[in-house]
Amino acid sequence: MRLHIVNPNTTASMTQGIAAAARMVAPPDAVMTVTQPDFGPPSIEGFVDGAYAVPGMLARIIEAETAGADAHVIACFDDTGLDAARAISNAPVVGIAEAAFHLASMLGTRFTVVTTLARSIPIIEDNLLRYGLDRRCARVRASELPVLLLESDPAGAQEKLGHEIERALKEDGADCIVLGCAGMAALAEKFWLRFQVPVIDGVAAGVGLATTLARLGMKTSKAGGYAAPLPKPYVGAFAPFSPIP
Amino acid sequence: MRLHIVNPNTTASMTQGIAAAARMVAPPDAVMTVTQPDFGPPSIEGFVDGAYAVPGMLARIIEAETAGADAHVIACFDDTGLDAARAISNAPVVGIAEAAFHLASMLGTRFTVVTTLARSIPIIEDNLLRYGLDRRCARVRASELPVLLLESDPAGAQEKLGHEIERALKEDGADCIVLGCAGMAALAEKFWLRFQVPVIDGVAAGVGLATTLARLGMKTSKAGGYAAPLPKPYVGAFAPFSPIP
Amino acid sequence: MRLHIVNPNTTASMTQGIAAAARMVAPPDAVMTVTQPDFGPPSIEGFVDGAYAVPGMLARIIEAETAGADAHVIACFDDTGLDAARAISNAPVVGIAEAAFHLASMLGTRFTVVTTLARSIPIIEDNLLRYGLDRRCARVRASELPVLLLESDPAGAQEKLGHEIERALKEDGADCIVLGCAGMAALAEKFWLRFQVPVIDGVAAGVGLATTLARLGMKTSKAGGYAAPLPKPYVGAFAPFSPIP
Amino acid sequence: MRLHIVNPNTTASMTQGIAAAARMVAPPDAVMTVTQPDFGPPSIEGFVDGAYAVPGMLARIIEAETAGADAHVIACFDDTGLDAARAISNAPVVGIAEAAFHLASMLGTRFTVVTTLARSIPIIEDNLLRYGLDRRCARVRASELPVLLLESDPAGAQEKLGHEIERALKEDGADCIVLGCAGMAALAEKFWLRFQVPVIDGVAAGVGLATTLARLGMKTSKAGGYAAPLPKPYVGAFAPFSPIP
Amino acid sequence: MRLHIVNPNTTASMTQGIAAAARMVAPPDAVMTVTQPDFGPPSIEGFVDGAYAVPGMLARIIEAETAGADAHVIACFDDTGLDAARAISNAPVVGIAEAAFHLASMLGTRFTVVTTLARSIPIIEDNLLRYGLDRRCARVRASELPVLLLESDPAGAQEKLGHEIERALKEDGADCIVLGCAGMAALAEKFWLRFQVPVIDGVAAGVGLATTLARLGMKTSKAGGYAAPLPKPYVGAFAPFSPIP
Amino acid sequence: MRLHIVNPNTTASMTQGIAAAARMVAPPDAVMTVTQPDFGPPSIEGFVDGAYAVPGMLARIIEAETAGADAHVIACFDDTGLDAARAISNAPVVGIAEAAFHLASMLGTRFTVVTTLARSIPIIEDNLLRYGLDRRCARVRASELPVLLLESDPAGAQEKLGHEIERALKEDGADCIVLGCAGMAALAEKFWLRFQVPVIDGVAAGVGLATTLARLGMKTSKAGGYAAPLPKPYVGAFAPFSPIP
Repeated sequence: MRLHIVNPNTTASMTQGIAAAARMVAPPDAVMTVTQPDFGPPSIEGFVDGAYAVPGMLARIIEAETAGADAHVIACFDDTGLDAARAISNAPVVGIAEAAFHLASMLGTRFTVVTTLARSIPIIEDNLLRYGLDRRCARVRASELPVLLLESDPAGAQEKLGHEIERALKEDGADCIVLGCAGMAALAEKFWLRFQVPVIDGVAAGVGLATTLARLGMKTSKAGGYAAPLPKPYVGAFAPFSPIP
Repeated sequence: MRLHIVNPNTTASMTQGIAAAARMVAPPDAVMTVTQPDFGPPSIEGFVDGAYAVPGMLARIIEAETAGADAHVIACFDDTGLDAARAISNAPVVGIAEAAFHLASMLGTRFTVVTTLARSIPIIEDNLLRYGLDRRCARVRASELPVLLLESDPAGAQEKLGHEIERALKEDGADCIVLGCAGMAALAEKFWLRFQVPVIDGVAAGVGLATTLARLGMKTSKAGGYAAPLPKPYVGAFAPFSPIP
Repeated sequence: MRLHIVNPNTTASMTQGIAAAARMVAPPDAVMTVTQPDFGPPSIEGFVDGAYAVPGMLARIIEAETAGADAHVIACFDDTGLDAARAISNAPVVGIAEAAFHLASMLGTRFTVVTTLARSIPIIEDNLLRYGLDRRCARVRASELPVLLLESDPAGAQEKLGHEIERALKEDGADCIVLGCAGMAALAEKFWLRFQVPVIDGVAAGVGLATTLARLGMKTSKAGGYAAPLPKPYVGAFAPFSPIP
Repeated sequence: MRLHIVNPNTTASMTQGIAAAARMVAPPDAVMTVTQPDFGPPSIEGFVDGAYAVPGMLARIIEAETAGADAHVIACFDDTGLDAARAISNAPVVGIAEAAFHLASMLGTRFTVVTTLARSIPIIEDNLLRYGLDRRCARVRASELPVLLLESDPAGAQEKLGHEIERALKEDGADCIVLGCAGMAALAEKFWLRFQVPVIDGVAAGVGLATTLARLGMKTSKAGGYAAPLPKPYVGAFAPFSPIP
Repeated sequence: MRLHIVNPNTTASMTQGIAAAARMVAPPDAVMTVTQPDFGPPSIEGFVDGAYAVPGMLARIIEAETAGADAHVIACFDDTGLDAARAISNAPVVGIAEAAFHLASMLGTRFTVVTTLARSIPIIEDNLLRYGLDRRCARVRASELPVLLLESDPAGAQEKLGHEIERALKEDGADCIVLGCAGMAALAEKFWLRFQVPVIDGVAAGVGLATTLARLGMKTSKAGGYAAPLPKPYVGAFAPFSPIP
Repeated sequence: MRLHIVNPNTTASMTQGIAAAARMVAPPDAVMTVTQPDFGPPSIEGFVDGAYAVPGMLARIIEAETAGADAHVIACFDDTGLDAARAISNAPVVGIAEAAFHLASMLGTRFTVVTTLARSIPIIEDNLLRYGLDRRCARVRASELPVLLLESDPAGAQEKLGHEIERALKEDGADCIVLGCAGMAALAEKFWLRFQVPVIDGVAAGVGLATTLARLGMKTSKAGGYAAPLPKPYVGAFAPFSPIP
């Protein structure tokens, strides 16, 4: 089974962190490729970064699928470009946020998401609404922790996130925590031990679900909104992509 | 990894069918136990059968967990007793309907469920509502096919179900089909080939998600509605269950 | 008019309390039978107790209906086994929680539920969602008061519940209170006098609605999800129930 | 117990029909007053008739409450002026549509409403949404039968409504029917016998629920949106109403 | 373009304030008429005032439309009588609350409404629900400021409202404020400058949207719930209105 | 007032059509600029085209805003890149679909959207859900008319769309029609005359709402999800955009 995990931002150290997290949970028979785009934003914080990240990410998905990927994982908690990725590929595509929401809804009765910046809350809430999983989500909380500080100040990050988890369990009625950023993977186990509730990291969840879909031989439906793009002459900057056979 | 799959009805041939379907998708390192209750209804068609099936099924879950199960799958499309099963165990528990709904929502934009009897529609719709996945479900259709006829008249069953799938794709705007009964597992691939859209069998989906949760080391949250039952002296018929350590 | 009220737990003192509460509100021409199961949990706190309570309760409903009951009331605030009870009987069946929610939504604009243990919140919220009455419910609050302490320490119970009602009126924007446990019937009037807002006890509400349905000659619909169970050979522990004519 | 039933339109024959329907279901100890406004529309078909009907109806409610009414029923299927009526009275107020919706949701899994004119559909759907009971409603159907024809051509009315009920049971998945007009009371039993599913008339339902609320000693909450109107000098046409003590 | 703005209460100074606010935002080519009813409540605080205000307001709308109005604005934040006004006129009708909600949902991701009395909250929440815009509304807050004090104590009003806005931005996650009363128009700009987020006054929003609809030549649909009222003989107090050609 | 209308695809004839439609409804004092991206897809049909269209479109928005635009209109019925556009600009940004939905919800009780390809239905339904206006939308219908055929075969297009509108009015209970493509502007008036219900073109609606927001001096909120993007070094293809002062 060949899994492709794409970090939609251009920061190599984050890609490496994601690869490390993915390797810890991938099944022995999985061959994993972890990529990042050639161009785009170094981190995805808000709608604009998200929009600019998609074209470079789609290029990686096309390449990986041509090379035989059985499933793709988009390793950004905004599930950046997820619908477009599904429409451009035949293999299943899983976003790490949606994966975490799905798993959380099977482990507890209400989950709280603890993310980085407040500006990401409406993005995450919109996704929850579209997936339907807002019904199982108690609250989306921001720790006001910039993405790149997760790497540069891990202790401070742990402190701030821990504080939000404490409030989630006390104030939100949550019995399950979803960590709202691909860069928080390393913290999931620590928080589980500390708070004694399931703490779900999206990268692990995404690799898990992509593995499941690939093993079941599942493909993305081409009969509805994820139909292959119609061939047409794109202008400029983006080389016209060749359809995946 | 030890997976426990429980068929909540007492019909051995259905249990064998479920075991066969599960074996086809389980990963090589999974040790599977497939059980059925000692007492209860021979098939689950409606709310009453469902209610009477739960105590016998919970007994199997307690036994399997004591014997070291890492995850449980409830192999009835009504997700019979799912919440009670979660509260009584520490390992994760997955219902085959919820598993199918979750996977379907990652493969297409709208799915239709094709089930057996019309009396099951409100049960399935209630579950979809509680999970939030009604938002991705175009419709729940009944083929008016009694559960036990799936075994005795497979050709007629295939004909009737195929007809409903055809209508689902044409009338409901669905691009993905969920087969709404544990006994339909053998038909999923045939329908996929015929209709060229993802056709999801709950047993495969359930085994897939349970495997994922087990591999990730996930446990059911004990901090909310799935808290372990308080010890108290039950009267009569049911031997007081011993808490799982 | 013959009303059957079933306490789904096996604690006789609670059954007596429920009978006393019911008698206070029943119309003069009502003949009431108040029963409890022969087997099952002594109180219902969470999903597991609920699941084990249903078979014993259904037996009582079948007996009462055979004896001519015109309506049934399920006297547990989780509305334990309500759907199965409807499917097994022809007479209407009312849960005390749903009855309280329906009445509350006609007396105020938003109601808050004050229940016993936090683990019951997801059960109550799920029911509210399925009934649609979550839209009129401001919040479900837990006082962390174990069910059986309602009897053993009534003063402490009143103190704790009063505190939650105070917060509900101040913080939730509620103008109506629903007491979330069959054992709280005796407190409704006290709280009404103290807080000057409608305080609704489920037992009174349930008896009221069952009376209404019986007087109108209403029956449970047998055309959909509440269709009579199909005759089939149950295995073991549960004697196959004879269908109600 | 003193019940006040107000027909919000000015057509005496409809008021008499409502009184007849109410009498058939009222308990022996109920003293009923059935009124209609002095001024306003002769039938309520759409938003404009509804708006003009309210002031005259509120006058009747104030009079009846001053005379000691224990509960009020608004006998128009649009639940005309229901919120204002609650705010102006201390006794509980029940709309016949909401009463029918509440009872229907306890007798079946999905109900369909069969009303008169298509222009009433958005009014009924808005009410269902606000009450939350849209979640249990399969569909609102119009028979395109003008209200006043219910009296002048009962056979034709029965034919048209019967046809819609037939379709509701076949196409909507409904197992329960709500008759969507106060003037259809006489038909409920006939349709029940013919279609063998619960057929609910709002007048009966409303009288039943008002009786229940009155017997339980319930009052409308004055702590929220139904607080008594603030005393202030109204200008012209409407004599300033005197607050109900 | 002829715009008609109706203040549904009978207080002339409020009508003048509304006219002043409207004039500040109307396009140069708009001819504005600002009216108030001849009879009814001097302010609208709750359901009862609202119900009594409608007939007098509809009279003004009929007059203005006969005189050639291209669009109407109802200048009360409860959108009093909005549906009836649409049904009685051919020109488009805009409520100031709905207008503010629509604009707010295009300027930010979540808005909070700051209104006067708590009794208005359920009215506003019901409207938000019916319009669908509850999904973009973080919260409806009451400052417990009586409508008429907005005029008599503007400094105190500003203080109280400012305090609620502060809390909305901090506690609700709102990034946009809607002022919940026609009498707050003069404060919008001050609060914008102070809090640096969009602060939307309904009068300005309503005039803006009515202008837009009129310029586009839009008319209210007469094909559904807003169909012209059927001609019928009204009794007493209200002169039978002549249908608008 | 300076309005900027951006056609997010690269087809000049569509840009001209949009400009023509916009000019017909713009107020006399509006200075309009109509642009299209330098690179990207020639039409937007589905998620992939949409994703590739955004970067080129954002460039035009930055340019126009730097040049002093008071409001932007995104002239694609998928509201392509709307959230990113809002985050990157200070002026308000309006999508033509959302504009049409908002206006439709003020002119009728239920609207149906008639769009081009079925693959666009999930995109439009997702947007309706996020805006909340799904609650007023009866149905989204596809005519299976490719976008570019609107220009090459206008008679055939009119025939197909007219057929869908006919069905919408008959089957969906809609009383208002929204044309679901920027290229259908020229047909709105014809269909209005033919079907006698409001037929709303998004370009007209978008220009109307953008004008309103600009005239009111409104700005996009920078306090939540639309906060200005954080400055950071983008890699490759996209020149780092300079923040708008």
